Amino acid sequence: MRGKFITLEGGEGCGKSTQIKLLAQYLHSRKIDVVLTKEPGSTEEGKVLRQLLVTGDKDKFDAISECLLYYADRRCNLTKIVWPTLNDGKWVISDRYADSTEAYQYYGYDKRVDFDILQNLYKIVAGDFKPDLTIILDIDPIIGMRRSYAKAEEMEVKELRFESKKLEFHNNLRNGFLEIAKREPERCVVLDADTSIENLHKKIVAVIEERLGV
Amino acid sequence: MRGKFITLEGGEGCGKSTQIKLLAQYLHSRKIDVVLTKEPGSTEEGKVLRQLLVTGDKDKFDAISECLLYYADRRCNLTKIVWPTLNDGKWVISDRYADSTEAYQYYGYDKRVDFDILQNLYKIVAGDFKPDLTIILDIDPIIGMRRSYAKAEEMEVKELRFESKKLEFHNNLRNGFLEIAKREPERCVVLDADTSIENLHKKIVAVIEERLGV
Repeated sequence: MRGKFITLEGGEGCGKSTQIKLLAQYLHSRKIDVVLTKEPGSTEEGKVLRQLLVTGDKDKFDAISECLLYYADRRCNLTKIVWPTLNDGKWVISDRYADSTEAYQYYGYDKRVDFDILQNLYKIVAGDFKPDLTIILDIDPIIGMRRSYAKAEEMEVKELRFESKKLEFHNNLRNGFLEIAKREPERCVVLDADTSIENLHKKIVAVIEERLGV
Repeated sequence: MRGKFITLEGGEGCGKSTQIKLLAQYLHSRKIDVVLTKEPGSTEEGKVLRQLLVTGDKDKFDAISECLLYYADRRCNLTKIVWPTLNDGKWVISDRYADSTEAYQYYGYDKRVDFDILQNLYKIVAGDFKPDLTIILDIDPIIGMRRSYAKAEEMEVKELRFESKKLEFHNNLRNGFLEIAKREPERCVVLDADTSIENLHKKIVAVIEERLGV
């Protein structure tokens, strides 16, 4: 039987990475084989594209070429990791997927890329394939960014491209994810991420049990 | 006044690079400022994409992701070199452009990428923009490949991805370029490249004078 494809989405500091680890542990405990992936940069080639996208002058690519590179990375993720794993009967959890590109490029950057172009690129790269479930971790950007900054300081991370943007951008981004969820309620579930790690994990498990019948 | 955009296309060993140099000299002699570019790899970012595309395991990208990367490179070439230069009133000659992607990916590789996808990507990246003139240097692949091998030996070039493909591929490629020219006769001119450098240059100059009124 084909495995399930779950994507986690959300703005900076929403707690995706932590929740993905906990969700994978939970699925393992239910005897479900699960493979973790992420965008961008899950494959060897994707790592090069990620490097190209997130380092150096942030305006070196215009919006269209940036989207093409994110979609090239997505295609690598799908053909090399997601599709073969699902066909093996295993589950896949992806830390970000196409909703992130839409939320950042269309909503976050105030429609700098046509909605049709993004839909078109999705179709070219993935056809009719969609995640079985998308969990959007919703958080007030002020709280999320505070978390991000605290974590970056702790880890001495230099790569804070999106965090350095104005609050308006992050508010647009948040609203973007909420718009996507409203448009596709059968695929997306929004969870309030302004809560403890344990509590959010419990809510995610409840959604998995209800939506995917674990 | 906006400059003219000329592209040169053709299979391996057709003599594009040599002819582009001679054409640029001729245009300079007619007091036309001309900038040379090429695909892939004309910009800083494009060079990284080119490196990614032409080195290493040649199957590391599937057809779709390869096309996305060629189109990302094309977008960089257009936004950073071609469009600003034309707007400055200068002319641009590009060593390969979109016809190469179509000829290689669609015709050469026996329709491994849908024609619609390539048309779609072109629209996303360039809109309605087209070259003012495309010169296709047509040559029997056996002659072209013999030239390519001789040149590679002389220059100790290692990068012979397309040259190592079967003759059938090169024949498909050649027919692809001829199909494109048949489809768009107002933009494309096919010239027989199995002739001397001087003779081919004269034919190119005649086309430029006739088509672009130099």
